[in-house]
Amino acid sequence: MSLAPIFSPRSIAVVGASDREGSVSRAVMGNLAAFPGQVFPVNPKRAEVLGRRCFPSLGAIGQPVDLAVIITPATTVPALMADCVAAGVKGAVIISAGFKETGAQGAELEQQVLLAARRNGLRIIGPNCLGVMVPHAGLNATFAAQMAGAGTVAFLSQSGALCTAILDLSLRENVGFSAFVSVGSMLDVGWGDLVRHFGDDPHTHSIVMYLESVGDAQSFLCAAREVAAKKPIVVIKVGRTAAAARAAASHTGALTGSDAVLDAALRQAGVLRVDTIEELFDVAEVLSKQPLPRGPRLAIVTNAGGPGALAVDALVGRGGAVAELDGATLAKLDALLPPHWSHGDPVDVLGDADAERFACALKIVSQDDSVDGLLAVLTPQAMTDPTAVAEKIAPLAAEFGKPLLCSWMGGHAVRDGRRIMNAARIPTHDYPDEAARAFVSMWERRKRLEWLAETMRASARCTPAATSGGVDAIIANARASGRTLLSETEAKSVLKASGIPVVETFIATSEDEAVARAEQIGFPVVLKLHSATITHKSDVGGVKLNLHSADAVRTAWRDIAAAVRPADFAGVSVQKMIRGKGIELILGATTDPQFGPVLLFGAGGTLVEVLQDRALILPPVTREIALRWIAETKIHKALRGVRGQRAVDMDALADVLERFSAMVLAERSIVEADINPLVASPAGIVALDARIVLHDARDADAVPAAFCVC
Amino acid sequence: MSLAPIFSPRSIAVVGASDREGSVSRAVMGNLAAFPGQVFPVNPKRAEVLGRRCFPSLGAIGQPVDLAVIITPATTVPALMADCVAAGVKGAVIISAGFKETGAQGAELEQQVLLAARRNGLRIIGPNCLGVMVPHAGLNATFAAQMAGAGTVAFLSQSGALCTAILDLSLRENVGFSAFVSVGSMLDVGWGDLVRHFGDDPHTHSIVMYLESVGDAQSFLCAAREVAAKKPIVVIKVGRTAAAARAAASHTGALTGSDAVLDAALRQAGVLRVDTIEELFDVAEVLSKQPLPRGPRLAIVTNAGGPGALAVDALVGRGGAVAELDGATLAKLDALLPPHWSHGDPVDVLGDADAERFACALKIVSQDDSVDGLLAVLTPQAMTDPTAVAEKIAPLAAEFGKPLLCSWMGGHAVRDGRRIMNAARIPTHDYPDEAARAFVSMWERRKRLEWLAETMRASARCTPAATSGGVDAIIANARASGRTLLSETEAKSVLKASGIPVVETFIATSEDEAVARAEQIGFPVVLKLHSATITHKSDVGGVKLNLHSADAVRTAWRDIAAAVRPADFAGVSVQKMIRGKGIELILGATTDPQFGPVLLFGAGGTLVEVLQDRALILPPVTREIALRWIAETKIHKALRGVRGQRAVDMDALADVLERFSAMVLAERSIVEADINPLVASPAGIVALDARIVLHDARDADAVPAAFCVC
Repeated sequence: MSLAPIFSPRSIAVVGASDREGSVSRAVMGNLAAFPGQVFPVNPKRAEVLGRRCFPSLGAIGQPVDLAVIITPATTVPALMADCVAAGVKGAVIISAGFKETGAQGAELEQQVLLAARRNGLRIIGPNCLGVMVPHAGLNATFAAQMAGAGTVAFLSQSGALCTAILDLSLRENVGFSAFVSVGSMLDVGWGDLVRHFGDDPHTHSIVMYLESVGDAQSFLCAAREVAAKKPIVVIKVGRTAAAARAAASHTGALTGSDAVLDAALRQAGVLRVDTIEELFDVAEVLSKQPLPRGPRLAIVTNAGGPGALAVDALVGRGGAVAELDGATLAKLDALLPPHWSHGDPVDVLGDADAERFACALKIVSQDDSVDGLLAVLTPQAMTDPTAVAEKIAPLAAEFGKPLLCSWMGGHAVRDGRRIMNAARIPTHDYPDEAARAFVSMWERRKRLEWLAETMRASARCTPAATSGGVDAIIANARASGRTLLSETEAKSVLKASGIPVVETFIATSEDEAVARAEQIGFPVVLKLHSATITHKSDVGGVKLNLHSADAVRTAWRDIAAAVRPADFAGVSVQKMIRGKGIELILGATTDPQFGPVLLFGAGGTLVEVLQDRALILPPVTREIALRWIAETKIHKALRGVRGQRAVDMDALADVLERFSAMVLAERSIVEADINPLVASPAGIVALDARIVLHDARDADAVPAAFCVC
Repeated sequence: MSLAPIFSPRSIAVVGASDREGSVSRAVMGNLAAFPGQVFPVNPKRAEVLGRRCFPSLGAIGQPVDLAVIITPATTVPALMADCVAAGVKGAVIISAGFKETGAQGAELEQQVLLAARRNGLRIIGPNCLGVMVPHAGLNATFAAQMAGAGTVAFLSQSGALCTAILDLSLRENVGFSAFVSVGSMLDVGWGDLVRHFGDDPHTHSIVMYLESVGDAQSFLCAAREVAAKKPIVVIKVGRTAAAARAAASHTGALTGSDAVLDAALRQAGVLRVDTIEELFDVAEVLSKQPLPRGPRLAIVTNAGGPGALAVDALVGRGGAVAELDGATLAKLDALLPPHWSHGDPVDVLGDADAERFACALKIVSQDDSVDGLLAVLTPQAMTDPTAVAEKIAPLAAEFGKPLLCSWMGGHAVRDGRRIMNAARIPTHDYPDEAARAFVSMWERRKRLEWLAETMRASARCTPAATSGGVDAIIANARASGRTLLSETEAKSVLKASGIPVVETFIATSEDEAVARAEQIGFPVVLKLHSATITHKSDVGGVKLNLHSADAVRTAWRDIAAAVRPADFAGVSVQKMIRGKGIELILGATTDPQFGPVLLFGAGGTLVEVLQDRALILPPVTREIALRWIAETKIHKALRGVRGQRAVDMDALADVLERFSAMVLAERSIVEADINPLVASPAGIVALDARIVLHDARDADAVPAAFCVC
């Protein structure tokens, strides 16, 4: 159901209305005084509240009510929901606390509330929230001490306390909002509903969110994927570190999933994520004011070298690039500028630059095809007129067709110049390094929109593939013997049946058989523990590499057998020792409780935890996505060939990633899969070891759905 | 000579004094109007300037002059320096531009200026600078439009334009300075002089520097090492990225060295480095107000969970840690707080906390030995009194004996609270994540002071060791044959003579000899190209691993011979193939033009450029420093043992690092040395390959001195 009754109500009932000084209810009533629609106080103990007639119950109002604001004790709320439904109320903001956050009893109460509300599709914000504000509609259904200014940013926050702080700060800084929403414990209305609502709201140009937990991940991500392409969504989510996740969980009782998975999900949904509240609003502002750059190359025009260099450090440090100006551009600048200008980007127009010189330089640079965005930096030097330069530049911005940012550095001297730039919708920053970082965020948004588009294409094509018969048989066999862990050979067979190249591997259950297999394959060979119970074989000394003779195989057999308990020893696997300098990679899949299957690619081998060079992604994976995914790791540089090694066949590697993704999506009984190492060399790609874990057959229903099913 | 005549002059001559409106000279004269000492305008064309008697020359003043401020054209300055010396002037601030920054002619002019000044030990700031301000002395010898406020921060800037911007901003933000120095092109007075001067200046509590180039690295670092232990030095240096280094160089003409080397040098000198101007002043303020933490563990006391989680993310993300509160602390908090408090760090005292509860919680937490620092976070909620909480907490801070930071979040509602905290020297931040980052900077300073102390101890013990006779002979032999590149076997002999374990390696100049050597060593063996010209052997296919038979050795010999030109082929080296799962490391030395010998340690092997897991250090290296150095890399975790591998002998590894450092310091003809891989395993440490380059004998004098010689 629509959220319009909550955010555009014509009439509001305040349940628990009171005029007792210092009460939450009094604060809400006071804030609603300016509301242009009807306000009905409801309280059986009063006849009038703040000059308005007070009703004994919702039913007694006798007129249509769009929104009920509930401020009564938690235990009264389930019954009130029934009243709301009976009275035809369409939306509720439950400010009252005392639910899930207080323990099991409160959680039970919440469920009663939800049950009652769902009978008539009544939508609920909260409970345990500050309320909602819609400044342009004069709606302030909160108990905050102040009303937000009107603007174009919808701010959605899971922390009511943060709301009050941001609100207070926004009034000092003169920042406005299209809506200001404290979501509370998100019993009903969650991120997905809100993102969709403000995606369609004409007053909202960008959506800014403070998250502590993701809630319904599917709903959020599907909504984000729909909205992100038309409006910037910028998110701060606490819990990036495990310690913060614990801190957030302890106070909301919310389940916080893996932060790295969320990161991947947001990237593919086109959502920007920032780490500080300062950046949260800065990025939203910049994105709503200027067009996105087509590439990462920023040209900096400055009247001082040092600030230009500061901007370059920040730019390159974040992944942007300095523009390589075209010869023709340089020639034009040579003609314009004094001889000792910087002759490149940053373009130092020098300390004595007047408005004309500054503006001309910017215009010349803007026409260079190798420039994706512009940053004007001004310091108030003796011969500088910050206001005049701003007046000259501001009207040009619209012509550039490229984003323009600026940093008028200083205080009083640059105040008027900043005001002019701001009025022309050119974002201004105190320092040029901040501006450069903002530019990189714009470029990041462009990249994420590309990820999003590719993800949408992939998802559209993503039909649950039929699983291969061979795979089914192997899995059935493991299940029949009560196992959820496949043996190495079983796992390799599953991969092979999925079209992923594996090194040929035989099981030997006696020493003599191991020798015979080794002689059949040809030396050197590798022996590995074959066990139904032990999965990390090298951790227990269960891997013997590079065996060159029958004697070596016999010694290895005995060493492995001696290293583990007899119950864990079911023989060995024998495989060819792959020679040469292949690059060891890891390709893995896990199942996130919120986001479903998640794939991992990165540097493999035994140092995988030490190097931590990996990138996550949500399937499905297309060729295009596979190549982007590989490029997110450091090891991808090695794949292109270093130190005399030839490059790896990237298409073949991308193909393996695509097949692995398809396997994971088709065979949903796989909850974990690892290929480590996956060896990539110019000769080809081959899986040397594999590990597959099935979900417990009894939990089949608990397996989360894949992200592609929207 | 002392800089007192420049920063505490009793009398000032302004050479080129004028009252022409809009001139630089007029601005300087105007700014000096408030100077309490004597001011003598000098200009042969005027009788009076701004009401002061004007002298035709310095000589005509007839009274002692401490400081001359020079504003005349560049070409006149050399002669004026002679006048200064003749008149007994002891310091000069040359504001005039037109020197080095304009090209060769200007650079020549500078040298004449320096030559004239040095005759009498006259010290010079500039040329091409804004000038200097000393607010508490009423001295403003600049052409800036405003005067800085008085404070305790000495700000030293290599960009005059940045000075004007910072000054303007500081007046808006009400920040003060003990000195405000635009250093210009640092012809005479450089970073070392200034750091020493303000290190001794009682008005200065911290030194904040904006650098574009390092200038005299030895002087700067020696001064920093003396001063950093008593006063915080915080630096921003542009050129962290190569692109910014080019940008800075193009506008100052200054030589910028490798940024990574500077980073290492600053760390060992106890100097903090930040990346943004915002942090530059923030960190300096925090460090000057609160004691340093003894460890990285921060306890956060907050009246809202979300902001606490934000702080934790920033804390852990920067390398700090959440405190594990003691059982006794938890029990005391249980007694104090409502039942659903967070039961851990962050300590959520809940939204209804009054001043008493807030302060008590903070006090309890402060007494926990597992807490190294405190952060109080307040959001202005309905039942919060931000001012009362501040009033209650502020007087306690001094008792804690641990650093206390705070974040009163919001605008008008928290203004008074912030003012109270600021007055009590408790640093306040808009957002808790900023405060957490500031705490980590405090911890970083503590760590750097430990680096500094260890570096001082090491340097005190660092006497140029006698080089081993064996090493000298090898080097002499290479030089005799006109080579600066040692062969692999020569390089290994040098390492061996320096006490570093190397794998035994023989040269074979025929196929039969290679086979004989292999049989002598025992299979498997490694063959590598032996060449006087080619140093990166694996890049040309000159390395053949794991050869198990005479036939394999013969094939390898032929492959290597065929891979290079006959002139580059001088046979092969034969060495044992080291088996097992050692960890490949790299240990290297280069010579930086500014900082002298620099050592590198990190993850080795063929992926060294891809993984980029490395840490730099300036010798000398002690056992203690070696262990810290190793801990700066990611690979050090692998050395402790992962995935069933036993740990490496860290003492043995530290010993190798120490010996390598001693070798580089003792044998200064080595300009480059690399051991890659240095293989570390539980069995020991061994160098498998080595590469050593000597400096060109003709350039012996150009080899920079080591950092330990102060």
